[in-house]
Amino acid sequence: MKNQKIIIIGGGVIGLGIGWQLAKAGADVTIHERAEVGRGASWAAGGMLGPIAEAHIDELDLLKLSNQSLDRYPEWVDELEAETDMRIGYRAEGTLIIGIQPDDKYQLEHAYNLYNDLGLNVEWLSGDEARKIEGALSPYVTAAIRCETDHQVDNRLMTQALKRAYEARGGEMHHNSPVKKIVIENGNVRGVQTLEGFQSADVCILAAGCWSGQIDGLPETIIPPVRPVKGQMLALQMRKDMMISNVIRTVKARYPMPVYLVPRRDGRLVVGATTEEMGFDTDLNVGGIYELLHGAFEAVPGIYELPLIETWSGLRPGSSDNAPILGKTPVENLIYATGHYRNGILLTPITAYEVSKLILTGETPDTIAPFHIDRFSKE
Amino acid sequence: MKNQKIIIIGGGVIGLGIGWQLAKAGADVTIHERAEVGRGASWAAGGMLGPIAEAHIDELDLLKLSNQSLDRYPEWVDELEAETDMRIGYRAEGTLIIGIQPDDKYQLEHAYNLYNDLGLNVEWLSGDEARKIEGALSPYVTAAIRCETDHQVDNRLMTQALKRAYEARGGEMHHNSPVKKIVIENGNVRGVQTLEGFQSADVCILAAGCWSGQIDGLPETIIPPVRPVKGQMLALQMRKDMMISNVIRTVKARYPMPVYLVPRRDGRLVVGATTEEMGFDTDLNVGGIYELLHGAFEAVPGIYELPLIETWSGLRPGSSDNAPILGKTPVENLIYATGHYRNGILLTPITAYEVSKLILTGETPDTIAPFHIDRFSKE
Repeated sequence: MKNQKIIIIGGGVIGLGIGWQLAKAGADVTIHERAEVGRGASWAAGGMLGPIAEAHIDELDLLKLSNQSLDRYPEWVDELEAETDMRIGYRAEGTLIIGIQPDDKYQLEHAYNLYNDLGLNVEWLSGDEARKIEGALSPYVTAAIRCETDHQVDNRLMTQALKRAYEARGGEMHHNSPVKKIVIENGNVRGVQTLEGFQSADVCILAAGCWSGQIDGLPETIIPPVRPVKGQMLALQMRKDMMISNVIRTVKARYPMPVYLVPRRDGRLVVGATTEEMGFDTDLNVGGIYELLHGAFEAVPGIYELPLIETWSGLRPGSSDNAPILGKTPVENLIYATGHYRNGILLTPITAYEVSKLILTGETPDTIAPFHIDRFSKE
Repeated sequence: MKNQKIIIIGGGVIGLGIGWQLAKAGADVTIHERAEVGRGASWAAGGMLGPIAEAHIDELDLLKLSNQSLDRYPEWVDELEAETDMRIGYRAEGTLIIGIQPDDKYQLEHAYNLYNDLGLNVEWLSGDEARKIEGALSPYVTAAIRCETDHQVDNRLMTQALKRAYEARGGEMHHNSPVKKIVIENGNVRGVQTLEGFQSADVCILAAGCWSGQIDGLPETIIPPVRPVKGQMLALQMRKDMMISNVIRTVKARYPMPVYLVPRRDGRLVVGATTEEMGFDTDLNVGGIYELLHGAFEAVPGIYELPLIETWSGLRPGSSDNAPILGKTPVENLIYATGHYRNGILLTPITAYEVSKLILTGETPDTIAPFHIDRFSKE
């Protein structure tokens, strides 16, 4: 398919990542982004690369894919940084999942047993052992699970780098260019309708995140079941005397909600995130900000004096089984790469490498085979 | 003094208010504002006109001045709105000072007794009576003091209107024009030094808020004892089903800090404020925002779902006795109008009317006589 015209719908990390790999292989690629490039979920995300902390007993295919993507992260970062002469804030300090007060103990033990059953690389720590690793943790942290392989990357830097790498390889970019319709004839994709008119294409890749189900022209049976899942977040500015280096997460079932703290190399401390079914609403509200601050404060009391430097929200592209929708569709040359939900940053390398391979070779790699859209129509 | 050249240092509500009155009387007035006009404390303030809620047993002169200024507010608003064809959001619904849970009862009774001793117009309400007036109050509000005469104005609109009125009357405005030095010769003011050089003046009015003590050239004994007192604030967007109309204040000695909620006509709900001795630091921090949200949520639980639309901070010009510094100084033709601390918006009319009268007539009105700088040098 190398000499064909390829259109990618969506200029987030997924669209950019695939586009970069295709452009690098010499393909003719154009991205149409509805708004500003890389300002959707790619910009809003926390950047955690946490297959373990995100693992769920009912999502074993996703866990496998996540681990495969994490394995390719060092190669991905090296390649991207070398091509762009940028640093994208990859940090390998690992993650501590903490329990606070005796209340969290049952949940933390439950998680630890699950991780062990799944053969994941985790270590049980007492509160004191956890504080030896991360001195700013609250004295009320009673135990922790250490996930040394759950890393992080600065997703905003990665997005900028991907844009630069994509364009340097000759990829074409149209921002503020929403695709209104995917044009299909006789079971074959023909192109897309944008504000400027019809754009013909041999291959179309739908990578429009939570907007993927909003585009006209798809047969009803293959409209991707992707919805926006709102997350509110904020960032603090760390100081020399109030600095953490591991990702800190409170245990999943925490009341009223779990939080994470992601320390960036530049001193920003990203705190997230609410999980709200609110449609396309992105308003920040009192409850969200309040619970984030409350949760972060319980985990690391020293944040109390830190400056709050940013509040924002974003929309995760949640699929109906929390796993991404990847690969071929019943429409010839229409490829999906969407629905990455909470794991878009983590899953970017595997998605970019494997979907571009699919397009260049015509063959679906085994890696992504379980994630076809047709899984939703199975009886 | 009418035909003399007058320079006002500071383009906040105080400088603008005096300048407007002087320009209206035909005087030749120039304002030098260090940054953007009206973006200091005038912009950051809550806009409460609350002599009662701010009353303190040790500040009876200030209480008298505050009441005099409040009495002139309707006239002030009419005059300003008529000259500018703007509405500045004056609201006369009054203020409820509330006690939450039994904990606040002692403090609320203490305040009520003080207000009665001072002959102020207050009414004691049960929690149910308070909720009849403001239905969104928490069921845990156990009692309240109603201050029908503690009103509010939209300080940002008032500042814009003052700028418009001042300029329409021929007042000259220099923004981003910090005054480095007040030039004094033989006990007489001669003008000011700005980035553009020396500007001669017959009269100088120092109205530079918390920066008033930072300007060179003043004899050490009359440097105004004004310091920045940081306040962090935020604004929510009310909805039809979550709307309040009175100013709500929690009782003064509340732990960890009292808050106020000021409902604007445009649906914004302003929540303030921390009181922090942090020098010129204006960073927002976790503790401040968290306690504001916590306090507001305890008073009016329904705010939980409201969008947070803005966070900001400002610097109150706090004098060493909390009262403003007004009128003549030992330097001939150097006039002070600074140090208004928490009451700058409330005290703007009386300051503008009386300081401009002083300048136009040469006579100090009785109203402002107790607020001269020389009170700090008395033995």
